[in-house]
Amino acid sequence: MLILAYDHGLEHGPADFRDVPESADPAHVFDAATHPAVTSLAVQKGLAEAYYPSYEDEVNLMAKLNGTSNLWMGEYDSAVNWSVDYAVDVGAEAIGFTLYNGSNHEVEMAEEFRQAQERAREHDIPVVMWAYPRGQGVKNDTKPEVIAYGARQALELGADVVKVKNPGSKTAMEHTVDMAGRTKVIMSGGSKRSDREFLQSVKTAIDAGTVGLAVGRNVFQREQPERILDALEQLIFEEASVEDALAATER
Amino acid sequence: MLILAYDHGLEHGPADFRDVPESADPAHVFDAATHPAVTSLAVQKGLAEAYYPSYEDEVNLMAKLNGTSNLWMGEYDSAVNWSVDYAVDVGAEAIGFTLYNGSNHEVEMAEEFRQAQERAREHDIPVVMWAYPRGQGVKNDTKPEVIAYGARQALELGADVVKVKNPGSKTAMEHTVDMAGRTKVIMSGGSKRSDREFLQSVKTAIDAGTVGLAVGRNVFQREQPERILDALEQLIFEEASVEDALAATER
Amino acid sequence: MLILAYDHGLEHGPADFRDVPESADPAHVFDAATHPAVTSLAVQKGLAEAYYPSYEDEVNLMAKLNGTSNLWMGEYDSAVNWSVDYAVDVGAEAIGFTLYNGSNHEVEMAEEFRQAQERAREHDIPVVMWAYPRGQGVKNDTKPEVIAYGARQALELGADVVKVKNPGSKTAMEHTVDMAGRTKVIMSGGSKRSDREFLQSVKTAIDAGTVGLAVGRNVFQREQPERILDALEQLIFEEASVEDALAATER
Amino acid sequence: MLILAYDHGLEHGPADFRDVPESADPAHVFDAATHPAVTSLAVQKGLAEAYYPSYEDEVNLMAKLNGTSNLWMGEYDSAVNWSVDYAVDVGAEAIGFTLYNGSNHEVEMAEEFRQAQERAREHDIPVVMWAYPRGQGVKNDTKPEVIAYGARQALELGADVVKVKNPGSKTAMEHTVDMAGRTKVIMSGGSKRSDREFLQSVKTAIDAGTVGLAVGRNVFQREQPERILDALEQLIFEEASVEDALAATER
Amino acid sequence: MLILAYDHGLEHGPADFRDVPESADPAHVFDAATHPAVTSLAVQKGLAEAYYPSYEDEVNLMAKLNGTSNLWMGEYDSAVNWSVDYAVDVGAEAIGFTLYNGSNHEVEMAEEFRQAQERAREHDIPVVMWAYPRGQGVKNDTKPEVIAYGARQALELGADVVKVKNPGSKTAMEHTVDMAGRTKVIMSGGSKRSDREFLQSVKTAIDAGTVGLAVGRNVFQREQPERILDALEQLIFEEASVEDALAATER
Repeated sequence: MLILAYDHGLEHGPADFRDVPESADPAHVFDAATHPAVTSLAVQKGLAEAYYPSYEDEVNLMAKLNGTSNLWMGEYDSAVNWSVDYAVDVGAEAIGFTLYNGSNHEVEMAEEFRQAQERAREHDIPVVMWAYPRGQGVKNDTKPEVIAYGARQALELGADVVKVKNPGSKTAMEHTVDMAGRTKVIMSGGSKRSDREFLQSVKTAIDAGTVGLAVGRNVFQREQPERILDALEQLIFEEASVEDALAATER
Repeated sequence: MLILAYDHGLEHGPADFRDVPESADPAHVFDAATHPAVTSLAVQKGLAEAYYPSYEDEVNLMAKLNGTSNLWMGEYDSAVNWSVDYAVDVGAEAIGFTLYNGSNHEVEMAEEFRQAQERAREHDIPVVMWAYPRGQGVKNDTKPEVIAYGARQALELGADVVKVKNPGSKTAMEHTVDMAGRTKVIMSGGSKRSDREFLQSVKTAIDAGTVGLAVGRNVFQREQPERILDALEQLIFEEASVEDALAATER
Repeated sequence: MLILAYDHGLEHGPADFRDVPESADPAHVFDAATHPAVTSLAVQKGLAEAYYPSYEDEVNLMAKLNGTSNLWMGEYDSAVNWSVDYAVDVGAEAIGFTLYNGSNHEVEMAEEFRQAQERAREHDIPVVMWAYPRGQGVKNDTKPEVIAYGARQALELGADVVKVKNPGSKTAMEHTVDMAGRTKVIMSGGSKRSDREFLQSVKTAIDAGTVGLAVGRNVFQREQPERILDALEQLIFEEASVEDALAATER
Repeated sequence: MLILAYDHGLEHGPADFRDVPESADPAHVFDAATHPAVTSLAVQKGLAEAYYPSYEDEVNLMAKLNGTSNLWMGEYDSAVNWSVDYAVDVGAEAIGFTLYNGSNHEVEMAEEFRQAQERAREHDIPVVMWAYPRGQGVKNDTKPEVIAYGARQALELGADVVKVKNPGSKTAMEHTVDMAGRTKVIMSGGSKRSDREFLQSVKTAIDAGTVGLAVGRNVFQREQPERILDALEQLIFEEASVEDALAATER
Repeated sequence: MLILAYDHGLEHGPADFRDVPESADPAHVFDAATHPAVTSLAVQKGLAEAYYPSYEDEVNLMAKLNGTSNLWMGEYDSAVNWSVDYAVDVGAEAIGFTLYNGSNHEVEMAEEFRQAQERAREHDIPVVMWAYPRGQGVKNDTKPEVIAYGARQALELGADVVKVKNPGSKTAMEHTVDMAGRTKVIMSGGSKRSDREFLQSVKTAIDAGTVGLAVGRNVFQREQPERILDALEQLIFEEASVEDALAATER
């Protein structure tokens, strides 16, 4: 599974587009999402309304339901920016939802998740949780046990898939996968790294039992997104080695 | 009555599965719940969705409606993680609901309980309250009078069954049972102890008039859950002595 | 009018039942409520569900809609523990509702009262307000002017009957009755006192123009509740003197 | 336009009735409201329910929708004490609504106003806003510019009539009237003054372009309310001078 | 596109009308809005109700949905003052909505925006967002990157048009336009300046790719609003130079 996530314009702002200016153009990223390796493209409502109609035959749409600008300085929280019903109207075939486990808004966010998840069940579309432990209750959000806890919470609350941060080792990711039970685990791509470093981290995650990746910056902050997508296709769907996948980026 | 409670993955996180790693696998605990001693298995929505369909002929499902991770550092509170209607759709035959009596969120939680309880009445399914005095208003949550107060509140608010912590003596538990009136009392199993200590505490609770136990860690943190369940069956349903029940664990 | 109030298990906890242990048993108090002097019995939802069905021919049920444990240490507030519609389903022929005038939750509680009162109007059942000035805005809740203000607020907000604390003198109660206009006033029985003291306070309230009493501890904390009810029947419904009423307790 | 406002029992409590004790009796004020000068009588729900049925042929009822006791010590706020639909059922032909411009509850109160105003539009009844700048954001609530701002806000939010405090001079009131555009302005009567002072202030307001007065204490705190109403009738509806109006009070 | 915005009576109060007193009269501004250059007139509900019916053939109405007085001293927030359904009833052909990006109320405001935007979609009317970064999280609301972030947030959340502050240079505005993708950008007119200065800033914005202007004070705080509207018509719709547009103001 390879989710191309592109809500950085909301979550991080224009700064994320600085190095590759064309990445600010949603059409550029929708184009990338037509790559056969991309399982679905996760965007906020406005991008879906404005750009998805031109790509509806080639792109599978995931509605990222909540999100907030990083101008926000309050305790971690996220606005629900579209209703599930409207997302389905626009063409969404899955929903994505962030939970800040341990935030002082965890209880409220979990209840918003409940409503979205149960509505998604009525529409028979899958639910992906971005499980991001953060906030007053979380001293170290990269600690393996905290990441594994987030994955477990996704299972307990009814997510079909959970997106987690890289816990740092294959063993730690295996533990996370174990804790998630039948909820499938995908790794968050994180900030941009070299091809080799990035692909190695993905390979490790795949070997640890995750079903793939949710990636944004490591695709659209590259000059040629299709090349890294070729490589990811090798790694995720064809069990290639990192070396073979790297070779694909050079074709 | 013997409720096997398995929401520890949400409430306590992976730490509770450390000693018996297979206990992290919900299938392992659903298997245990097929033991004839188990009246029902209380789980969160995600576990019910993913695992209950394979066990619907052998396991009686209780929907634990609310719960929150212990990453949460705010005043005691609990998110309502599924609607009663959806719980019934999934197959729940009873609901469980935590009230933190004395928390600064008591008023809000009691109102959430009201909605769940009245909806459960419409579906004609029983309601179990986890009455856990905690928070700003509670200096000592193991004080017998505080535990008895929690049981009384369950009666006043309309729970059919109330799960309370062990108040420490037979006399104290008798007082709790008295305060609960027609609401049936079950004891919370608490953290893991030796077979003898645990069974003795259950026996005392039964003798004090409770109708049974809600147990989690004292079952799934044992290598052979079926053996302690054999013993509990003896104690709760067959009026056995602790010695006889212990013998059952050695069969 | 004589309302037997029995929500002490919620509001005060087991402590109120210590001296007369059988008073903890709701059946004991439902029995007392069959006394001809009792206009209605005010209880929380759980007691009504569990015990009222056995008494529906002999007891007139008032649903005490809100209430909170005294473990609560926040600013005065009260959870709404049942919906009016459900109360009517259970058999309630009146509703009771506490307003903490002057609490920082007054605005919210008044709006909850609005909803309950208007729903009660649709069911054509009367509304009794427990007007209890308390909280940040109230320095002295036994001050006659504060009690009279509470009674007036009950009139302004649409209560049919208002239950007030004893303001301390006949003159003060007359003033309270004046302020309440067409809203009928009943006095709260308060904590337990001697027969004479208690009956004298009731007599004074009746002479001041109240229509009766809402009493709890002064009935159920007596060994023989029916005797004090005999006396109250004399005072409230037969215009007896305190001496004659006292004589009734000795029959 | 002359609105007789009588919600002082809620807003100020019994203190406002001290000097003229019969003014505590709503029937006394409903009687006064039958005076031909009175355009409508603004009361809270409880008074409307209990007293209006006896006066429905002689009194035009305005439902004062929100209000709170002055025991409340929080930031200025006001509970919505009846729904518009129920007010119409009871017989209201207009609604009144307080907005505390500048209070930390302004946003919430404005949204409550929106709901009430739009519901009133469906019932085709007019809306009067009590525009009372108060609270954290208001250093001086008698400053002409602040009063004029309140009137403008009433226009912008969709009030048909706005009740403002006396800004202190004819020029200041003219400015307020200008700012209110097509929203009609009425002056609040305020606390009790001598006949001459009070009538002079009304005359000034009329000359400044207001359409009348909302008056409470300056009517019901007088021994003979009908005499001051005679005078007001002269001033407001017959363009009399203050001297002529004063003469009317002596007839 | 040229939106004449006239909600200053709510947002700023009478102070904005001081220099040109007739500007306080909504009829004066509705008259100006009949100028052919004006695409639509954005007002609050009360002005629409009272004045729009006389102009419905000549003015295109935009419902400015939220707004709050500047008496408000809390963290930046804005009350939703009419429902979209009612706005459409009154005749609105578009809605306007303020988001204070970075305010501690951002999450709540974004959720209110969601509801309004989705309802507008059902009525098939466009949505304009006033993207005004302000509040605890915003140290400098005139920083180009902050303004561009606001524009991007409008795109991500589903606004058709976004109104932004002038970021200070053509390059900065081009960046903002880039970030807004298919969401059209209009510049906020801001406080009053000289004809030349104002028109020059508009010309720069047009050259930078915005589709026009939302202007208030720079029109109604002028003695002859029609002259500056003539000039704006030249600049926005006829690609005139600033000199030619200035000449138009002197015709």
